[in-house]
Amino acid sequence: MHDGNHAGAPLNPGLVFEMVQAHQKSAALKAAIELDIFRAVGEGPGDVASIARHASASERGTRILCDFLVINGVLAKEDGHYRHTPSSAAFLDPASPACMASIAQFMSDPALRPVYDNLAEVVRSGRTVLPGAGTVEPENPIWVQFAEKMAPMMGPMAGPLGAVVLNGHTGPMRVLDIAAGHGLFGIEIAKQNPEAHVTGLDWAPVLRVALDNARKAGVQERYDMLPGSAFEVDFGGPYDAVLLTNFLHHFDKPTCVALLKKVHAALKPGGRAATLEFVPNEDRVSPPAPASFSMTMLATTAAGDAYTLSELTAMYTEAGFGSITGHPIPMSPHTIVMGRA
Amino acid sequence: MHDGNHAGAPLNPGLVFEMVQAHQKSAALKAAIELDIFRAVGEGPGDVASIARHASASERGTRILCDFLVINGVLAKEDGHYRHTPSSAAFLDPASPACMASIAQFMSDPALRPVYDNLAEVVRSGRTVLPGAGTVEPENPIWVQFAEKMAPMMGPMAGPLGAVVLNGHTGPMRVLDIAAGHGLFGIEIAKQNPEAHVTGLDWAPVLRVALDNARKAGVQERYDMLPGSAFEVDFGGPYDAVLLTNFLHHFDKPTCVALLKKVHAALKPGGRAATLEFVPNEDRVSPPAPASFSMTMLATTAAGDAYTLSELTAMYTEAGFGSITGHPIPMSPHTIVMGRA
Repeated sequence: MHDGNHAGAPLNPGLVFEMVQAHQKSAALKAAIELDIFRAVGEGPGDVASIARHASASERGTRILCDFLVINGVLAKEDGHYRHTPSSAAFLDPASPACMASIAQFMSDPALRPVYDNLAEVVRSGRTVLPGAGTVEPENPIWVQFAEKMAPMMGPMAGPLGAVVLNGHTGPMRVLDIAAGHGLFGIEIAKQNPEAHVTGLDWAPVLRVALDNARKAGVQERYDMLPGSAFEVDFGGPYDAVLLTNFLHHFDKPTCVALLKKVHAALKPGGRAATLEFVPNEDRVSPPAPASFSMTMLATTAAGDAYTLSELTAMYTEAGFGSITGHPIPMSPHTIVMGRA
Repeated sequence: MHDGNHAGAPLNPGLVFEMVQAHQKSAALKAAIELDIFRAVGEGPGDVASIARHASASERGTRILCDFLVINGVLAKEDGHYRHTPSSAAFLDPASPACMASIAQFMSDPALRPVYDNLAEVVRSGRTVLPGAGTVEPENPIWVQFAEKMAPMMGPMAGPLGAVVLNGHTGPMRVLDIAAGHGLFGIEIAKQNPEAHVTGLDWAPVLRVALDNARKAGVQERYDMLPGSAFEVDFGGPYDAVLLTNFLHHFDKPTCVALLKKVHAALKPGGRAATLEFVPNEDRVSPPAPASFSMTMLATTAAGDAYTLSELTAMYTEAGFGSITGHPIPMSPHTIVMGRA
């Protein structure tokens, strides 16, 4: 039996109870971040009283919340004192450079609440109940939030993506970063290759976040901005490489193919297109993280999906690409898919 | 290292992502129940098109929802067709007598949504943000819902509870079932001992559900009703046994002790008091299901908790009980705690 299947699993009524109550986990993590619990645990002695003081919170609430975090693997408890686990120290303590607490703020956006409260209606209609095109509605301010809040999750993917795209390539090159967001992927190319010139494409308010990050990385003189919609703006070019990160999953296949054709036309012969995607196995139910991402696309878009490697390969092929390869990124739910013009 | 601790766990950024998205699991299960997906899978050929037809839903939405249910262990997928797992067949298919789908309706009561949306405020104040005493506010209609919807989860506990309380006791006996709810626990005693006479105590509208269940079990002639608050009504008696199921966790320790004293006074010498509770280990973070229940009590009550066996033993002792024993119920998050007057 393959991953993600449970036909032979033992009888477990707890599974239903656990799933019904799963929403408490998201609420507890969000509350803990708001109350700065992970900083308190990292800095202080770890007893309930001192954490409660740091959080300006009750001891009853603090104790129950911290116990709940321990049960869920994002704190540890020793002799009645709370400590970080390796994962909470790295990814939830604001003192850590890898802290991802801001992604919880982005992903628990109250604007998305009605979608999940009415998920049966979403399943009936087959598309988001958000207005228009959902999260990909033009100029949706959610993408400024994405650019600002999701960088800690995407940052660790930039190094592997840069390495796959460059593949030892040195010397002058032009790179287009479509739906640049925080800009970290294009910026990484500019850092790895000091002769690379990067053009970031996104809504203008989003590009301000990318430019700010380019400045911090000291590559702003090789960073241009192309504000607008990827479907409407003239890409210019020709480019040596085009990045298309966390973008295709928002759209149906014909829309993806049309965009990939536009990308193909903007590339030099032999140029590279690299997408960063949640790519489930062909069974669509494993591994859990990329396979589950389809639910987010159902809930928030009109026709998006987490596409399998065979689906992405078919799209790339239809758009004229060859040499199509998948590169899963270790320790992440993401896969880089590369094609050559 | 004990259960529920993770100090030595490997570095895993996915843990944060998974926790942030956990709310999708509750929303997906609720949607699947509303759309009657589990009946469709049990009755039909299991392909997306036929499930979608049964649910009057889109194929895109149905496919993504069913895949999500597979990922979470409450469906299986074979050759592109959806099948029941043993657990979904038993506990989620409405055709199964053990179907627990109604508990999802009870536990996802929209009235509780603001509590979890404002969990940081709950932790700050140390008590529910629901009005008054929260779910234990007098005459809260939630308990009629509990009596109607939670019976499928509580039913399997009735047999073990009856066996522990009776312990071979035959002949005439009087039993008081405090916070009777669906009445299944007292009714089970009446079924196991044909000379037992049961008095159910709860709010009057709740007792109508219990009486209905007593009728169905054919024991209504040995079933009396005592409507009102357990803290205010005269218990009468003396009784051979008092049941106190899923009740103490709503209150602080002094309130529990006062109630146990009142129970003690209503028992014959040597009579039994049996509570059914979520009882975590002394570390309060294991096993996951009973330990997590503290979060529900934080969110929905002013001062309730999931008490450990040593805490419950201390309460029983202070109220005058002896011979206090704990009896975990297999395959459930519950433990029976017995004391003798």
